[in-house]
Amino acid sequence: MNRPLASLETPALLLDEQRMDRNIARMREQARRLGVAFRPHVKTNKSWDVSRRLVDDPEGPITVSTLREADYFFEHGVRDILYAVCIAPNKLDHVLGLQARGARMSILVDSVEAAHIVAERLRAHPQGREVGVLIEVDSDGHRSGVKPEAPELLAVASALKEGGIEVRGVMTHAGSSYDCRTPEELRAMAEQERAAIVLAADRLRAAGHACPVVSVGSTPTALAAENLRGVTELRAGVFVFFDLVMAGVGVCQVDDIALSVLATVIGHQREKGWTLLDAGWMAMSRDRGTSGQPVDQGYGVVCDTQGRPMEDYILVGANQEHGIMARRPGSAGSDDFLPVGTQVRILPNHACSTAAQYPAYEVVGTDGNVRETWPRFSGW
Amino acid sequence: MNRPLASLETPALLLDEQRMDRNIARMREQARRLGVAFRPHVKTNKSWDVSRRLVDDPEGPITVSTLREADYFFEHGVRDILYAVCIAPNKLDHVLGLQARGARMSILVDSVEAAHIVAERLRAHPQGREVGVLIEVDSDGHRSGVKPEAPELLAVASALKEGGIEVRGVMTHAGSSYDCRTPEELRAMAEQERAAIVLAADRLRAAGHACPVVSVGSTPTALAAENLRGVTELRAGVFVFFDLVMAGVGVCQVDDIALSVLATVIGHQREKGWTLLDAGWMAMSRDRGTSGQPVDQGYGVVCDTQGRPMEDYILVGANQEHGIMARRPGSAGSDDFLPVGTQVRILPNHACSTAAQYPAYEVVGTDGNVRETWPRFSGW
Repeated sequence: MNRPLASLETPALLLDEQRMDRNIARMREQARRLGVAFRPHVKTNKSWDVSRRLVDDPEGPITVSTLREADYFFEHGVRDILYAVCIAPNKLDHVLGLQARGARMSILVDSVEAAHIVAERLRAHPQGREVGVLIEVDSDGHRSGVKPEAPELLAVASALKEGGIEVRGVMTHAGSSYDCRTPEELRAMAEQERAAIVLAADRLRAAGHACPVVSVGSTPTALAAENLRGVTELRAGVFVFFDLVMAGVGVCQVDDIALSVLATVIGHQREKGWTLLDAGWMAMSRDRGTSGQPVDQGYGVVCDTQGRPMEDYILVGANQEHGIMARRPGSAGSDDFLPVGTQVRILPNHACSTAAQYPAYEVVGTDGNVRETWPRFSGW
Repeated sequence: MNRPLASLETPALLLDEQRMDRNIARMREQARRLGVAFRPHVKTNKSWDVSRRLVDDPEGPITVSTLREADYFFEHGVRDILYAVCIAPNKLDHVLGLQARGARMSILVDSVEAAHIVAERLRAHPQGREVGVLIEVDSDGHRSGVKPEAPELLAVASALKEGGIEVRGVMTHAGSSYDCRTPEELRAMAEQERAAIVLAADRLRAAGHACPVVSVGSTPTALAAENLRGVTELRAGVFVFFDLVMAGVGVCQVDDIALSVLATVIGHQREKGWTLLDAGWMAMSRDRGTSGQPVDQGYGVVCDTQGRPMEDYILVGANQEHGIMARRPGSAGSDDFLPVGTQVRILPNHACSTAAQYPAYEVVGTDGNVRETWPRFSGW
């Protein structure tokens, strides 16, 4: 039932199965080597067809970024779910509902204020005390979390305990690793992430909290870490597909990128060197994550239908449904314009944001044809 | 059955019905005043509940940016549909299928190459000759289209005619109007758009083509045009909701913006002046359309739950599911941090990209409560 790419209406989201499997094997081996449990983040893929390849046990563990992900993966049999965004009070009923139906939920807090709210609501619910409450630790200053050395850390744990809830552990996400440029910077950031979370766990234990869970992760730090002493679990998500940002960070090669957008040539502005495609920013997302990197890839790198980059061609611009393919600024050479109707594949800056624009993955097998369509979802 | 905002899980997409109705009335009055037909672009709203307010006749006309929009609105009874992106050959079967089921489709070409492909395919289909073929004209250099003065314009019409297809008309979209900053620039751009399309139509008619359709439009030029002599129809889409980019262009006020994202405070980084929200770039989109405008609104302007902007507070940064609310750079004043659990509304940079992240609009009535949920869709 394999279908050629030429049979697809464009734009369409292609997933190279072989590359994906290679990326997954690499990360799972890394977690094994580091001696920690692996709790994959499913926010990038939002698909059971993908995520089932990330776990040995269909019950998990997994990490989610939305409760819609929690609902969906619970329906597919996953039970051990960490919702890795500090909890908003309006989501507690939803979390408790999942717990009552058999999920083993974990949530985050990073303030005494939130700890009081959470403790009160969990205590009032029959399954509330079974929900794991982790404290988010700020290891790199890029978003939420308490500083590992701050008095607030112990105050949050105490507020939970006074409310009848034992802190389950600590977690951190060194999202600043996306700004690293060299292997040395990556290793240093991974060690910074590890050291911060271990310091937080040690302080909590010294204050009498058991703190069994010590959780770290981001794709760059997970792949760069030399050791994770004191850590119990590793989280990562974007590695499944990789993308141009990750290639720019240096944790993958361009030919590891498993996700691409299939597009079609619809016209030209020859005097400008432009080839117009039917994939604009709605198809690629507005993510320009490589704009601050040494190599700015525009809205994506243009490849032929076999996925081989076409030298120097990127999407230099995008309208809502129009992509402008041209040689990258400063490139020499004369243009050999592709005819109207030609298909190309575009590698995305950021897999999370590009994939979010599509209802499904068209899974491309080793013969270059589409062998299956895997649904995915977006939203909350 | 009105529900208070406090009952919603966040993030959620709110639609202020009163503002929307006012925006729609303004554009319809503008088309009436200019004496042209109005062919609303439904790419922004992707919802029949919204789009039915844009047309007198439920059969249309409308403009779409994807064939998924064409399918959806056809299912809701719309018949007169312009697909306003130069046609990719792999979409012709889809267009012909809609035509065969009773739609009155119009499509675009902007090259002799595409004209040959289209003429051959339309001629071979029983309903093919009923499909309207328009030539896209480039009035401002921002994307596709033939220059109105170029020999190519007549060559495209001739190629269609030789292929047995009479050109239906010409269309242009002055998307560069988004870069205008003053009323004078806007009026000049509207006149540039009008003059270009009328020149193209005149040249085609002088060469013996009837060219009954002369179509222009973008929200800024539609609202700025002083006259549309020689034009037969006007297209616009984002005006339904407006957004911060349109306010920056000067065609609406901030309090005309009908779309906002409801978010909840989940924590703080007080020493940085940060309030963390559960709406990041996935909820707002990655669109930073105001970054090149005189006032950079970050990832959006923060308002209270009544929709009143909180002075100087914007989303200064965003992670995937975290928004960072803070005073805009350079702002004076001390912070009065909102408690965890507080809801806010965030006005988006670009309505098209933000709305695309959601499966539905929560419609807020004049009492400030949600009175209905209107589904919408995304994708192709």
